[in-house]
Amino acid sequence: MSAPLRLGLLGYGTVGRAFVRLLQAESPRLALQAGARLRLVAVASRALPRKLPQAELPSGTRVGEDLLAVATAPDVDVVVELLGGVEPAGSAVAAALDAGRSVVTANKLLLATRGADLATRAREKGVTLAFEAAVAGGIPILRAVREGFTGDGIDVVSGILNGTSNFVLSEMARTARPYGEILAEAQALGYAEAEPSADVEGADAACKLTLLARMAFGQEVPLDSVRAEGIARLRPVDFDYARMLGRTPRQLGIARRLPDGRLLLSVRTHLVSNDSILARVDGPFNAVQVSTVHGGDFVFTGRGAGGDPTATAVLADVVQIARSGHRAGVPPFGWDERSPFAPAGPADLVAPFYLRFVVADRPGILADLTTALARHDVNVDAVLQIPCRDKDALPFVVTLEPVDEARLGRALSDLASFPFHREAPLVLPMTP
Amino acid sequence: MSAPLRLGLLGYGTVGRAFVRLLQAESPRLALQAGARLRLVAVASRALPRKLPQAELPSGTRVGEDLLAVATAPDVDVVVELLGGVEPAGSAVAAALDAGRSVVTANKLLLATRGADLATRAREKGVTLAFEAAVAGGIPILRAVREGFTGDGIDVVSGILNGTSNFVLSEMARTARPYGEILAEAQALGYAEAEPSADVEGADAACKLTLLARMAFGQEVPLDSVRAEGIARLRPVDFDYARMLGRTPRQLGIARRLPDGRLLLSVRTHLVSNDSILARVDGPFNAVQVSTVHGGDFVFTGRGAGGDPTATAVLADVVQIARSGHRAGVPPFGWDERSPFAPAGPADLVAPFYLRFVVADRPGILADLTTALARHDVNVDAVLQIPCRDKDALPFVVTLEPVDEARLGRALSDLASFPFHREAPLVLPMTP
Repeated sequence: MSAPLRLGLLGYGTVGRAFVRLLQAESPRLALQAGARLRLVAVASRALPRKLPQAELPSGTRVGEDLLAVATAPDVDVVVELLGGVEPAGSAVAAALDAGRSVVTANKLLLATRGADLATRAREKGVTLAFEAAVAGGIPILRAVREGFTGDGIDVVSGILNGTSNFVLSEMARTARPYGEILAEAQALGYAEAEPSADVEGADAACKLTLLARMAFGQEVPLDSVRAEGIARLRPVDFDYARMLGRTPRQLGIARRLPDGRLLLSVRTHLVSNDSILARVDGPFNAVQVSTVHGGDFVFTGRGAGGDPTATAVLADVVQIARSGHRAGVPPFGWDERSPFAPAGPADLVAPFYLRFVVADRPGILADLTTALARHDVNVDAVLQIPCRDKDALPFVVTLEPVDEARLGRALSDLASFPFHREAPLVLPMTP
Repeated sequence: MSAPLRLGLLGYGTVGRAFVRLLQAESPRLALQAGARLRLVAVASRALPRKLPQAELPSGTRVGEDLLAVATAPDVDVVVELLGGVEPAGSAVAAALDAGRSVVTANKLLLATRGADLATRAREKGVTLAFEAAVAGGIPILRAVREGFTGDGIDVVSGILNGTSNFVLSEMARTARPYGEILAEAQALGYAEAEPSADVEGADAACKLTLLARMAFGQEVPLDSVRAEGIARLRPVDFDYARMLGRTPRQLGIARRLPDGRLLLSVRTHLVSNDSILARVDGPFNAVQVSTVHGGDFVFTGRGAGGDPTATAVLADVVQIARSGHRAGVPPFGWDERSPFAPAGPADLVAPFYLRFVVADRPGILADLTTALARHDVNVDAVLQIPCRDKDALPFVVTLEPVDEARLGRALSDLASFPFHREAPLVLPMTP
């Protein structure tokens, strides 16, 4: 067995504490698999040192507030960054790489915004930048996308990438209770943050999607190229209508490569078929689907968030670095072949759509709507209306045959001028 | 870009032809990802050379019958073995490794019987032995089990490992037609071989399970340690009863590590809950579930057989070898840490069971059966009987509360002496 691999940890929140706990609990097995003991030598946290529960740390571990000191300490071989956020994490990771340290991080926001720069620094120093834990927690999906499908072409990478949103949607489906109530429950259970907007509005999933797309398609995908929509507008009645259609709502991140190489990226709520595996992925779980040219579709599911699943993914990266010899450096696969980003637009998304209107009822509304849709060559597939007593705020649904979203957008602009709307129509794509 | 990576192919059946086709069709992308052109220089097939469709091969490819000549040819860097079977594939692979060639194989039977020996040869010569395609076709599951969960402990690896059996079972569930009819249909569709016994009797899944268990638990798992049962005894009425229980039959390979390190291995039909992801894996698809200590359960699904999915997995291994420098040699992960095999027995399997009897009806049968079960402390959960006119061959079902299978076996031995049986009871474990 070689000399111990010395670790410096930045950040001591939920994931950081789980990491330290697992590192100690699984120490003999990890040493066997890594071919070297893994030894925590220093922890830096922005929390005051006296607040750090020293008893939880291996004896002799240095504790302090100075991130850069740990990131570049002469006795640290690998820096584990679990701070989250762009700064000060970004400066600390850059300093560690520049000082010739390999880095393992779970920081999706940092990678989505500065990944290319950090990968370049790692390559220049011949060290490893590993980040399996940044997408879908414990599911080893980045490894699969980078290495498992190189024999095939990937057309689409998609999935349930945010456990909070999935918990809220699957609980709304199960209990027929409204969004706000379920979100409060998710917060009480620890599945949602006190400030949940990054989760429920799609920004968190968008970060993960850019990383998946980067690995799958080799393009530099800017974060703001992802069209992100939240789940807050869904109402219990949408779940009733979805059920009538044999479907259920799921927030999906989708990165699709068009035949000409352009990428279409979105995070939004889709109605997925109840027969699909994605409809079975409930609660705080994640799922990633990889659609390939020759081999068909592959789905990977598992816990996508939480301290333990994320910490185990971080540990797996640390073990890989130990195995491959941390001084040898593994090229940061997935960042090595770059090509410029080629974005697609709404005209490139062709799907059947679900439109839910809420109207002040009066005769002729359906005729007005369908006439306006027909004027744009948008074909109606079905009209659904569950009986409702509130004629002043009547929800009903029109489903459409497959149509490109640019055309649909023009039709919806026309529709917006009708005076009977009580709220803007809810527009959800339906998966095939 | 480095010098071309020169490939020698052994075998030219369904997968071999798909491999050659994809190698040509995806040539530019593969070269980009591999960092080197992939060039087929020789093919050896036991089919007579004049039967080989030369037009399908890149011009200049040598074609012959001599496997050893290609396996050790001086102008071949990587040998791709797609012959199947233990011999002559085993001798050819051993010769290639001994001659310092890296080998990519999809041969699960060869690896399940001689994997340790071949891995030793690869290690001694510093070359790579890669075999992702041997389990679950295009699903990169061995990579995930070896590398993706090293930060966690694996308790159970299980799954739908044989597409033919899964096709037959899911078609029986869908159409209520008998086993023989569906098997014939599967043969006509190309999902089943003319000689289907390895698929439907569990031997194929057993090979894959030993490889999964080897990678997950680091033990040398002998093929004959897997208890394998086929699917031929299931009747349409079992699907009716399963439906009443909210379940459906699936052939599952399961490798479970007990707390003391012993392994329990089986391939048999289970009744799985309709709410589970496994129940959604229909037709010729495969699924592998990995249950971990800290991170929970992970499921991977995709096409598990057929020319293209298998060939893409083989190509992914070839690309990895090219990327890591085929002369550097990657240690055959998963074979490096060996520990002796520690088998578990029937007493270690505790599950709720489904017992289907077929009896010549007369009063008192249920009393006789339940009394005999009670004598062995086996608790009945429910008795199900669908009305049936044939009182001379009446099928009915008893479900049991969780019981260890050694105890159940003793009870069933007792029951066997009753004169009213028309056939031996069908015994299926039910997943939790």
